[in-house]
Amino acid sequence: MLNGHHLVNGTWVASERTFAPLNPATGEELSPRVGDADAALVGKAAEAAEAAFADYAARPASDRAAFLRRIADEIEARGAEITERAQQESALPAARLEGERGRTTGQLRFFADWIEAGICFDARVDTAQPDRKPAPRPEIRSILRPLGPVAVFGASNFPLAFSTAGGDTASALAAGCPVVVKGHPAHPGTSEIVAQAILVAIEACGMPAGVFNLVQGSGHEAGGELVRHPLIQAVGFTGSLRGGRALFDMAVSRPQPIPFYGELGSVNPVFALPGALGARGAELGAGWAQSLTMGVGQFCTNPGVVVALEGAGLSDFLQAADEALTGVSAQSMLTGGIAKAYRASVGRLTKASGVTGRRIGEEAGGSAVLPAVFEVSAETWLSDSSLHEEMFGPAAVVVRCKDTGEMADVARGLEGQLTATVLMEDGDLDAARALVPVLERKAGRLLRNGFSTGVEVSHAMMHGGPYPASTDVRSTSVGSRAIDRFLRPVAYQNFLEEMLPEGLGGNDGGPRLVDGKAHSGT
Amino acid sequence: MLNGHHLVNGTWVASERTFAPLNPATGEELSPRVGDADAALVGKAAEAAEAAFADYAARPASDRAAFLRRIADEIEARGAEITERAQQESALPAARLEGERGRTTGQLRFFADWIEAGICFDARVDTAQPDRKPAPRPEIRSILRPLGPVAVFGASNFPLAFSTAGGDTASALAAGCPVVVKGHPAHPGTSEIVAQAILVAIEACGMPAGVFNLVQGSGHEAGGELVRHPLIQAVGFTGSLRGGRALFDMAVSRPQPIPFYGELGSVNPVFALPGALGARGAELGAGWAQSLTMGVGQFCTNPGVVVALEGAGLSDFLQAADEALTGVSAQSMLTGGIAKAYRASVGRLTKASGVTGRRIGEEAGGSAVLPAVFEVSAETWLSDSSLHEEMFGPAAVVVRCKDTGEMADVARGLEGQLTATVLMEDGDLDAARALVPVLERKAGRLLRNGFSTGVEVSHAMMHGGPYPASTDVRSTSVGSRAIDRFLRPVAYQNFLEEMLPEGLGGNDGGPRLVDGKAHSGT
Repeated sequence: MLNGHHLVNGTWVASERTFAPLNPATGEELSPRVGDADAALVGKAAEAAEAAFADYAARPASDRAAFLRRIADEIEARGAEITERAQQESALPAARLEGERGRTTGQLRFFADWIEAGICFDARVDTAQPDRKPAPRPEIRSILRPLGPVAVFGASNFPLAFSTAGGDTASALAAGCPVVVKGHPAHPGTSEIVAQAILVAIEACGMPAGVFNLVQGSGHEAGGELVRHPLIQAVGFTGSLRGGRALFDMAVSRPQPIPFYGELGSVNPVFALPGALGARGAELGAGWAQSLTMGVGQFCTNPGVVVALEGAGLSDFLQAADEALTGVSAQSMLTGGIAKAYRASVGRLTKASGVTGRRIGEEAGGSAVLPAVFEVSAETWLSDSSLHEEMFGPAAVVVRCKDTGEMADVARGLEGQLTATVLMEDGDLDAARALVPVLERKAGRLLRNGFSTGVEVSHAMMHGGPYPASTDVRSTSVGSRAIDRFLRPVAYQNFLEEMLPEGLGGNDGGPRLVDGKAHSGT
Repeated sequence: MLNGHHLVNGTWVASERTFAPLNPATGEELSPRVGDADAALVGKAAEAAEAAFADYAARPASDRAAFLRRIADEIEARGAEITERAQQESALPAARLEGERGRTTGQLRFFADWIEAGICFDARVDTAQPDRKPAPRPEIRSILRPLGPVAVFGASNFPLAFSTAGGDTASALAAGCPVVVKGHPAHPGTSEIVAQAILVAIEACGMPAGVFNLVQGSGHEAGGELVRHPLIQAVGFTGSLRGGRALFDMAVSRPQPIPFYGELGSVNPVFALPGALGARGAELGAGWAQSLTMGVGQFCTNPGVVVALEGAGLSDFLQAADEALTGVSAQSMLTGGIAKAYRASVGRLTKASGVTGRRIGEEAGGSAVLPAVFEVSAETWLSDSSLHEEMFGPAAVVVRCKDTGEMADVARGLEGQLTATVLMEDGDLDAARALVPVLERKAGRLLRNGFSTGVEVSHAMMHGGPYPASTDVRSTSVGSRAIDRFLRPVAYQNFLEEMLPEGLGGNDGGPRLVDGKAHSGT
């Protein structure tokens, strides 16, 4: 069923140069071999996306919504096939992949509904004031319009929800932007099946062929070419700090710099306040251990740092966590490279000065790894920024504090985060209220009494944050605000009704702001 | 009255190194000499802004609104003094400066009203679904919160409306961000009087002293230090492509890259369609000449390119423009450097291959310059991108086309623009409708039958555009959307009422989106 080819402008295209995908659990090569895109092929994909732009951007939102829904249907129709291949390529369990598929199709339908509601296009009308002195005011209307062709990088850790038809692709297509996906080399077959689904949707909905393109590649070349290509107008990326920063640097060094939406890393600190630890330390420790090891710790929102006061509550927390973690068996990570990097991180912490702790359980082989928990004093943590770095996987650092002042110092010492959590009881309210303004500047999402893994696809969700959590602090890659990343305001002064885009005409009746007053539309 | 000092944390601070401001009309030095900020002083200003952040960001919008209104009042109270000094520093006429003062104070009050309305903070609530399967949905709320300290660069061409208390400062303060202004060296005295006004407002409103700071400097050093300072979280800039790009590059190369909102240049093309030229070529030519020479052509929206079909209509247009321009006397530009650059641009075009045209009137001396109009075939223009560059001042290029296809080619050949204008009659509708999708990708604001100078401060206004018109295509530096540049979404999951920021609580009653439905608030 798989051909290992790229999808460019509605056609499957082979490359001379190919690579073999690997099963991380077994180390075995998977067939077929997959094309490795070169600059010429990337250029063709960008040109196809550009050629599709005018047609696609001019479609009514209802047409784009129907297209998104059809993609969701076609993905569902290939559900068993996707799960089977994704299991081989990612070592993720079937139940997790099925859940992720539901998230992916749910997200496509959520965006479809949202663009039909029209609110996200922020239509505005300033009425003419022909009698204003000293000069009349012309009528000005504005609305958000699509940016142009968007490059999307598939993420290793979500082969569906942050990959080929994941959040970046879905939000760009919802905005009216054609997409070129650079498939992640860890799951090219999964990408290809999803691309097949999208191709059927393109044909069924009469969309221009270049509205979606998939280029595969094993190294950095194709991605770099894509980000630098002059026709690409924005980039969506989820991945490592190092790789993401390199691509960000390319995006902003172009003759025409473009928006780069990169989600690069986060340790998602948990501030366990004394009242909470005292009242239910053991329960919290067990819950935290479960969040830490879910999906072999390979979530962007994995809670990799706990900040707490010394004391009996913390001991209860750590003991319960230790018991829970001891029961976790070795599990295969997404790729051999990721497992190797995880082992290196854990090894580094094991040898770090002032750090105690251990890998829990016996050393595992291949891509399979075990959880690890380290402990360090706040003083040591504050003095050694290498201890702040993300360890991608089920590993964490517990920072022991002498008092709440030290907890606040740790909060201030954090880099940018996707999330920050406060575990608290009523008696912790003053301490929590003192922490929140500090944490608000460090993270995109603040949680009270919960764990950060599990990101709702909803209107209020913020999945982003200060750098390096995101390269664009004003954006989210999850939730309906994700669409806004691929839109820009355009104003029309003194235009005729028949020259205005959808959503902005006088008789259109959609939601809009008229002279600063909100109208909900018909 | 003037001291030539910087304003840092509520205190006037002198520098050992100083520079002398110049009167561009006479070339004479103005007193007093002005401090030239070094890195240490810039650092103190950034630290003062950071120290003010927590307090200022936590103020209710009504307090910030009162502060903005008080700044407007204090500027008005110094109106005569500001006009007198700004005339000496900018050579702009009193009436223009008075109009610009009205725009500046009107903008402060417009932003004050808008933050009180609350819509711009985009409050969202996703209600909890405790019974959802397979997992309950937590309550998630989100709202836009201020970014942190903002650096603002005063612009030479708007010593009030895009300078010390101009649009960037006003929108940052409205958003809840403290500001450090790097004063433009062409009008330091004007900046200082406006800073005096702001200082009185700070004290009268009980705002933290570091909420506004002014650092003066004659060269590039202070500005570079400011953009690179780790406490600065965003930058607003209006100026040249070269200077702006250098600062942009610094902003995105920081260890933590920050948003840089730069408005760098635009030639604001005018597409004169055949029907319009045939029906009223002379009238349009005279109107265009007036727009081109307004304020000695020193507006960002100056219409510096006309694209038209050969023919009698174009001859009428050019003849009327020529007559109008012949009546324009030499006028002093904002600085000697700007006049020199203008003469160099005009001189370059005079010698360019395939270009005809002339400076209109006799050569003037000092900083005073005359308008210039050049003509070129579309073929030549398309083949020589140096002809596309902005000539800051009252100079323009008329691109003669053989047919509307060539007009569309010119449209496609444009770089990013603030504005693009279509002059049309009913018979031009098809040609206009073919051009609009092309121009929409090139410019932030499209006009029908008007001239681009004159930018309304309103809700629908878009003053920005694809690079190099703006370094951030998604943003505007004029109108209520300007505030959005300095805000970022923060989500609060399962929070207690008393831990939420203003505008987001359950009983707050402001405008918000609840489960995707818009509520206008009480």
